[in-house]
Amino acid sequence: MGIVLGDNRYGKAETRLVRVDRGTDRHTITDLNVTTTLAGDLAATHLTGDNSGVLPTDTQKNTVYAFARDGVGQIEDFGLRLARHFVDETPTIHRARVHIQQYTWDRLGHHSFSRGAGTRTATVCYDGEQAWVVSGVEDLVVLNTTGSEFHGYHKDRYTTLPETTDRILATAVTARWRHVAAERADWAASYAGSTRHLLAAFADTHSLSLQQTLYAMGQRVLSTRDEVVEVRLALPNKHHFLVDLAPFGLDNPGEVFYAADRPYGLIEGTVLRDDAPPAGLAWW
Amino acid sequence: MGIVLGDNRYGKAETRLVRVDRGTDRHTITDLNVTTTLAGDLAATHLTGDNSGVLPTDTQKNTVYAFARDGVGQIEDFGLRLARHFVDETPTIHRARVHIQQYTWDRLGHHSFSRGAGTRTATVCYDGEQAWVVSGVEDLVVLNTTGSEFHGYHKDRYTTLPETTDRILATAVTARWRHVAAERADWAASYAGSTRHLLAAFADTHSLSLQQTLYAMGQRVLSTRDEVVEVRLALPNKHHFLVDLAPFGLDNPGEVFYAADRPYGLIEGTVLRDDAPPAGLAWW
Amino acid sequence: MGIVLGDNRYGKAETRLVRVDRGTDRHTITDLNVTTTLAGDLAATHLTGDNSGVLPTDTQKNTVYAFARDGVGQIEDFGLRLARHFVDETPTIHRARVHIQQYTWDRLGHHSFSRGAGTRTATVCYDGEQAWVVSGVEDLVVLNTTGSEFHGYHKDRYTTLPETTDRILATAVTARWRHVAAERADWAASYAGSTRHLLAAFADTHSLSLQQTLYAMGQRVLSTRDEVVEVRLALPNKHHFLVDLAPFGLDNPGEVFYAADRPYGLIEGTVLRDDAPPAGLAWW
Amino acid sequence: MGIVLGDNRYGKAETRLVRVDRGTDRHTITDLNVTTTLAGDLAATHLTGDNSGVLPTDTQKNTVYAFARDGVGQIEDFGLRLARHFVDETPTIHRARVHIQQYTWDRLGHHSFSRGAGTRTATVCYDGEQAWVVSGVEDLVVLNTTGSEFHGYHKDRYTTLPETTDRILATAVTARWRHVAAERADWAASYAGSTRHLLAAFADTHSLSLQQTLYAMGQRVLSTRDEVVEVRLALPNKHHFLVDLAPFGLDNPGEVFYAADRPYGLIEGTVLRDDAPPAGLAWW
Repeated sequence: MGIVLGDNRYGKAETRLVRVDRGTDRHTITDLNVTTTLAGDLAATHLTGDNSGVLPTDTQKNTVYAFARDGVGQIEDFGLRLARHFVDETPTIHRARVHIQQYTWDRLGHHSFSRGAGTRTATVCYDGEQAWVVSGVEDLVVLNTTGSEFHGYHKDRYTTLPETTDRILATAVTARWRHVAAERADWAASYAGSTRHLLAAFADTHSLSLQQTLYAMGQRVLSTRDEVVEVRLALPNKHHFLVDLAPFGLDNPGEVFYAADRPYGLIEGTVLRDDAPPAGLAWW
Repeated sequence: MGIVLGDNRYGKAETRLVRVDRGTDRHTITDLNVTTTLAGDLAATHLTGDNSGVLPTDTQKNTVYAFARDGVGQIEDFGLRLARHFVDETPTIHRARVHIQQYTWDRLGHHSFSRGAGTRTATVCYDGEQAWVVSGVEDLVVLNTTGSEFHGYHKDRYTTLPETTDRILATAVTARWRHVAAERADWAASYAGSTRHLLAAFADTHSLSLQQTLYAMGQRVLSTRDEVVEVRLALPNKHHFLVDLAPFGLDNPGEVFYAADRPYGLIEGTVLRDDAPPAGLAWW
Repeated sequence: MGIVLGDNRYGKAETRLVRVDRGTDRHTITDLNVTTTLAGDLAATHLTGDNSGVLPTDTQKNTVYAFARDGVGQIEDFGLRLARHFVDETPTIHRARVHIQQYTWDRLGHHSFSRGAGTRTATVCYDGEQAWVVSGVEDLVVLNTTGSEFHGYHKDRYTTLPETTDRILATAVTARWRHVAAERADWAASYAGSTRHLLAAFADTHSLSLQQTLYAMGQRVLSTRDEVVEVRLALPNKHHFLVDLAPFGLDNPGEVFYAADRPYGLIEGTVLRDDAPPAGLAWW
Repeated sequence: MGIVLGDNRYGKAETRLVRVDRGTDRHTITDLNVTTTLAGDLAATHLTGDNSGVLPTDTQKNTVYAFARDGVGQIEDFGLRLARHFVDETPTIHRARVHIQQYTWDRLGHHSFSRGAGTRTATVCYDGEQAWVVSGVEDLVVLNTTGSEFHGYHKDRYTTLPETTDRILATAVTARWRHVAAERADWAASYAGSTRHLLAAFADTHSLSLQQTLYAMGQRVLSTRDEVVEVRLALPNKHHFLVDLAPFGLDNPGEVFYAADRPYGLIEGTVLRDDAPPAGLAWW
């Protein structure tokens, strides 16, 4: 029996980059959290501490800042530039992943902003030949006050949940969608469109289960955005329980709720085209 | 020498209440985090475990939910109703504080919402005779990309900070403002006005120090809102450091920044009318 | 009517300092989070942006690191050195507060450590003439599986809580204790003694209310530590609710609990000597 | 082109369970955070909202509590009981994953405890025929004050990091190890042994890179614990930067450090036996 090194990777997590574009009096701001991850011929550093193949994570951070000097643009493009650089310029590195979170800022004035809700994300992978791009959104908290039912489920001896034909449905959307190709999308329009359709599908789906809403959200993006071939969603069910006011002589016709933290349901699912190309390293 | 009980209080923290108003097809949602705090004749429970004067924190939570049955309205009014109830109806309780955080929801549809940024707050105190109302906002993150300088400060042997005539100024505003009276304000209009003026003052003040911006923000509220007599602000200086790109042969004309987490400056200050009535228990 | 500047202060929050003492092969580590806060003649920076009286928060951070070069020692002493420096050496600064959190590390080897539970704190204030020292502990999570009752409390129409003669009592202790003088205590022994007595009082008090436990904890410290004159405690009641297993045909004799996050009770109280000297700026 | 449902699963996350064993006067406490995840014939709920195949997440939570009535024991065994139940008793469910975090409590007395550092974990998967068990530890923060070097790495035009032969090495260990079989280990002894060896390898490995330390930690567990066939580690490099005190006329011989939050290195790797059985669903 021997002991061997298996899969491994390393990188710099959470490099916080803010870029200001001052081309006109009307400034723009790009506020990012960038995580780079590399893999390749890295056995030596694990086995003997020979670091000759290791591009330091500090260098990865520096590269993020240096590349921002020429502008960031869309985060998918910025990720592609970085991923290609790491693989193409570092002999030992054969695979790179760049994951970017972009924080939302709303304009207050020509050079003033206030932080908004929801975070845009992009994850780019590159193996020296091909690139994959996954865009996404997270921390998008949404709620329907009606139009949600839950009944007809499997019951066993541990089931006590009453069936309902009208409940609050709330979730914090984490959605990621894989693009058909790494090269050709209008990333800004794609993001705006996909996000708008996710929200619309959440709002106007009469829901019999959060799973049904999840599928509707993915389906809506795929049926409206040609450049998207796969959508992955993770939807925590942020439970809102009707408070029993009967002990106080009061009814509660769907008005007063307790918003619970834990435990919460967690629904995860993938919706994709039946002719989607292989995912390759898209989800690495 | 004896050992004695000093100041004490107790309550229920973070009761999460969501109320849906369904009067029309166009629902509204009120999403609150309520903390109640009581004080009074409570020596016995501390000294002997005699709880006859203790209104259980569980009861306080129940009261929050029961009172919501009749509608919540403005959080200042809801806080006043609760505070008065606890003091007026509980013989041993002589003082009540109700602190409410209200989360922001933006409308997506007739019964659909998405969570927004910034949190409205209200803190009400009542002692059986008088009530005090403090309104506020928190988690309001704002940033100016220019119009901020910092120079001319005191220097000692530990000073290395370079002076600057153009920096990013960013902060997460926590502001609280005391109302002249507990009875008469239009709370919704007051909140909207005060918050709008805080943002405007942040955006259009050419700043020589975050302290100057703080004062300008408080001054702006007081000079535009008659019902406000005192403003307290806590402004973390969310540092954005210009990245030195010279090692890579690049200049950096105010474009590429590192957004730091810790340490951060913290500026706290009060701006008030010179004829403001005594604060009483407003800040208890 | 005029608008004026009221109380104000500023400083550097959360300077993370780790000091290694290598005097022998057996290293020691001191891991701190330091927040400095200054007040004085600071009207000009607020009103006109004249910063000539402002010692930059960046300088405050530098000072923390520079002073650590000569050793940190006990955090109370380190706080006193810093607070005196800021007031004595800066003409405009008349008051300084240094708040320090010290993280716990357990020894794994001569130069190896693992992070432990609980955080030691110290807060020092100095006004140019007198200093005050408050020591403390936080994030000390403790639980009794029995020996806790809660009954005989005041009931109103909103009370539904059943009385109990045996419950779980759990809390996260935040305790701060004021020293009789800033000069003379053996801070390490004082901290060890006070913390040991807090834990012992929590463990061996048969509790009829968390308030009773709070008082017992403060009383225990005061009756055993001559150098302490006042103890302030904040004890969240981390509720553990007995799960109703009856729907599954099971009893639950005090064995299976749901540990709730929110809401929680919050009990705050002070225990002090009746001849304690005035608190002055101890709690500023 | 059609749109189809891909991989999906759902469950109840973060059911907080505390169990007290009162068999003797000397109580014991088991404090868990349990997440259950199920997969199977779930297309209908996604596509049409037909929930007849869905075991509600509320039922999953109830099951966790009900099963605890008979005792929890080792978390690996508790996970196996739950996973087998969900698959064996629910016609539509073909796969279950139970992930458990167990919080550490140190004894203060016969029925008193204080929360300790580090969290034990177990993840069990079951597909109706076979079960897989992965044990682990997380939030185990460790630090070496010396015995760590980093040099000889690949340099490019973005590299500025100075090489060092003596640095602080600190990390928060997340380790998970796969057992050779789901049935036969003494889980308590296995956990204690694996954790002890992880800590020992961290402490006594003279490190040329965090990757080398990672491999040494995995190798140590595998070479001492026959029941373990694969170890996966994620080690954030919690950077401690030597502070430049030269501007203040001071040297800094490896004594005063700034502990940074972000960005941080992140080293992930697998160490395994070359004859390890296939992983199957172990890491699902």
